[in-house]
Amino acid sequence: MKPLSDSERAELLPALDGWSLVEGRDAIRKRFVFEDFGAAFAWMSRVALAAEKAGHHPEWFNVYNRVDVVLSTHDAGGLTRRDVELAQRMDLYASGLLKA
Amino acid sequence: MKPLSDSERAELLPALDGWSLVEGRDAIRKRFVFEDFGAAFAWMSRVALAAEKAGHHPEWFNVYNRVDVVLSTHDAGGLTRRDVELAQRMDLYASGLLKA
Repeated sequence: MKPLSDSERAELLPALDGWSLVEGRDAIRKRFVFEDFGAAFAWMSRVALAAEKAGHHPEWFNVYNRVDVVLSTHDAGGLTRRDVELAQRMDLYASGLLKA
Repeated sequence: MKPLSDSERAELLPALDGWSLVEGRDAIRKRFVFEDFGAAFAWMSRVALAAEKAGHHPEWFNVYNRVDVVLSTHDAGGLTRRDVELAQRMDLYASGLLKA
């Protein structure tokens, strides 16, 4: 898995919904705020299964209904297509569960 | 739920296995390192159910097989018996799943 090229970055990253670059490392982050802890953990469980299947795991911090996610590909030393795909999947799974 | 008294602190906190005080706030923390992501998330799932049942949730950060936990009772402004009980339950559930 190779790091994103400059053209891939320019194309893929701005198209992500609400994700931003992390300062000081080649990674993206997003804060998800759910209805409650049950919704947050249901989402995390579904993401966990997908992450395990893909062999690509997030860094995430949870407190109650909030999950702060950072994605990067450690083996590649930065962002790859795997991160973009996991970000998109996280957004897909979160729809309908987020706090109004 | 009242904050722990001085005598409760002296009795309960040193008896916890591997938990330490967080600098700058009235909270305890512990790092759990599991065999792999599957073991880590299985543990988180069981803890999540217990936390939801107790109405008392952890702050936790996960990356792959590692989970960094911080416990404090926000409503009480610091450590209470709920934190001690959740810490003990986390330790109980982790037994057999931790990295050798």
